Amino acid sequence: MSVASEPGTVASGDASASYPATDRTVPARMRERTHYDRELVHSILDEAYICHLGFVRDGSPVVLPTLYGRVGETLYVHGSTGARVQRMAGAADPGLQVCLTVTHVDGLVLARSAFHHSLNYRSVVVHGLAHQVTDPDEKRTALDALVDHVVPGRSQDSRPGNDKELAATSVLRLDLAEVSARVRAGGPNDDEEDLALPYWTGVVPLTKGHGAPIPADDLASGIAVPDYLTVL
Amino acid sequence: MSVASEPGTVASGDASASYPATDRTVPARMRERTHYDRELVHSILDEAYICHLGFVRDGSPVVLPTLYGRVGETLYVHGSTGARVQRMAGAADPGLQVCLTVTHVDGLVLARSAFHHSLNYRSVVVHGLAHQVTDPDEKRTALDALVDHVVPGRSQDSRPGNDKELAATSVLRLDLAEVSARVRAGGPNDDEEDLALPYWTGVVPLTKGHGAPIPADDLASGIAVPDYLTVL
Repeated sequence: MSVASEPGTVASGDASASYPATDRTVPARMRERTHYDRELVHSILDEAYICHLGFVRDGSPVVLPTLYGRVGETLYVHGSTGARVQRMAGAADPGLQVCLTVTHVDGLVLARSAFHHSLNYRSVVVHGLAHQVTDPDEKRTALDALVDHVVPGRSQDSRPGNDKELAATSVLRLDLAEVSARVRAGGPNDDEEDLALPYWTGVVPLTKGHGAPIPADDLASGIAVPDYLTVL
Repeated sequence: MSVASEPGTVASGDASASYPATDRTVPARMRERTHYDRELVHSILDEAYICHLGFVRDGSPVVLPTLYGRVGETLYVHGSTGARVQRMAGAADPGLQVCLTVTHVDGLVLARSAFHHSLNYRSVVVHGLAHQVTDPDEKRTALDALVDHVVPGRSQDSRPGNDKELAATSVLRLDLAEVSARVRAGGPNDDEEDLALPYWTGVVPLTKGHGAPIPADDLASGIAVPDYLTVL
């Protein structure tokens, strides 16, 4: 195994604990909030339902909310073959340059000064080339991952895609190689001279949850809510 | 007032009910989910805490989660003057091409077939040129909007930015001119031949909320939680 010369950097594609830092994943500021730890990156990716996928079309940026799934160090992004980004990735050689970003907002940070107001958040930014998946077996694996990303275990409790549906679905593959996470946590950072000001200061935590499952109007009687939904 | 020749399209910048459809805001598919209504767009923008801001750097897309605020038909995006996107916008003439996207995920849509699994969501995509705000009065207005976007009313209950802080803060302006919203709501759309399959089908609603405000460790005694936090 190769050993990187700088702390926190490892060769791309190996099973080390961290992603290598690159020009694109080292920020211009707030470097103390930036992390390359694989477990942290995976946990942020696995907790979200959507990513924001960025690409360049006719010289301009486009950012679209998109379903995705993760299999190890690979992300799969979903789309119909009619979607422009999928067509572009299919035509691009050696692939389509994308930036895929996932963000959780965890809290509102209220400082005494307007200037120090902030949010607590966790985000992951992935840079790389997206490739259209053409191998049928990989496509099935990817579609299972997409469904299980929405509800873990669901791919085993629904009708699998048939040949026609697989042909109508396009999937992009993006390897987790050039990746960084960014985390802000904790309370406000007011300046020393503001500490005596009479404004309330602290954090308002943001919470996420699920309501009770709503059965489809045409759900046959006798089909109970599955266990994997009650433990969400 | 100019009257557009096609339904749903109006001249940019006027006070009509809808944004004009453009090449960039008419999708390749699922056009029935796309809307140009200003009130809908504003409501989606005002409910979110962050946007995902896309721009092109060295030919590659970059997507970053970012604080923003809205004043009428203008969005203000926040950043330090050290942040690359702000420097790029300051140097770009006539401005920096950006795509700003805001998304709410409202529910998990579980169909009988893997193929028809989906999410209920509401999103807004804004295309346009971002300009760096240089006028001090507009900058103050923008910073108030950014703080009030996090907690309505908070800009009046915190210390306003001083000259040094204003100088250290860079704000981008992006006009709401080329804008579309996209909405998916309701239950799954299974194929007729799948309706008798024995899988639970329906929607799991996703909920958002706030926990109790957590005072800063150094908050002076006797400062109560303000009313604008208790009604969040």
